[in-house]
Amino acid sequence: MIIVSGHAKLKPGALARARGAMLTAIEATRREEGCLFYSYGEDVTAPDTIIILEYWKDWASLERHFTEPHMVEWVKALGEVGVVSRDIRAAEAGVTRTL
Amino acid sequence: MIIVSGHAKLKPGALARARGAMLTAIEATRREEGCLFYSYGEDVTAPDTIIILEYWKDWASLERHFTEPHMVEWVKALGEVGVVSRDIRAAEAGVTRTL
Repeated sequence: MIIVSGHAKLKPGALARARGAMLTAIEATRREEGCLFYSYGEDVTAPDTIIILEYWKDWASLERHFTEPHMVEWVKALGEVGVVSRDIRAAEAGVTRTL
Repeated sequence: MIIVSGHAKLKPGALARARGAMLTAIEATRREEGCLFYSYGEDVTAPDTIIILEYWKDWASLERHFTEPHMVEWVKALGEVGVVSRDIRAAEAGVTRTL
């Protein structure tokens, strides 16, 4: 499994402006083959910051995801509202414990 | 690195009631040795659901974390407001790509 995780800080007010496009992208992504979990959270400690969490079956699923039309739209929408900084990584899950 | 991730669904209204204890726990945890990142996000697609994302240096740091007094307090606070369901895992990060 591939875990995509991280956070992105948006410009002030950008999260509210991007909400519609965000929900559309999430909904479409969840229907993709190989998508095991996909959601964003509004960071409780930082305004206009989103926590990203995604589980993918394998690298191929994730790579295909980035070429999907709804992702192209979402990246465009994000660019329009403005991303200040981002730190997002995709990591293969090794030894795993349920907490 | 260990990635702790997942989500927890709280009872209706519980997130608002738990917010103070949550922020206290996050702040204290971020000061722990071996804690590389720690935050919660309010799921944009589901009310009263938190997205959990933590990066830890190693298993030892994570195991020590659970014994910290502020964690004991936080788990108690969570129990009081009510957790409906949870799906949280800790995984060793293998091959990693920056996105």
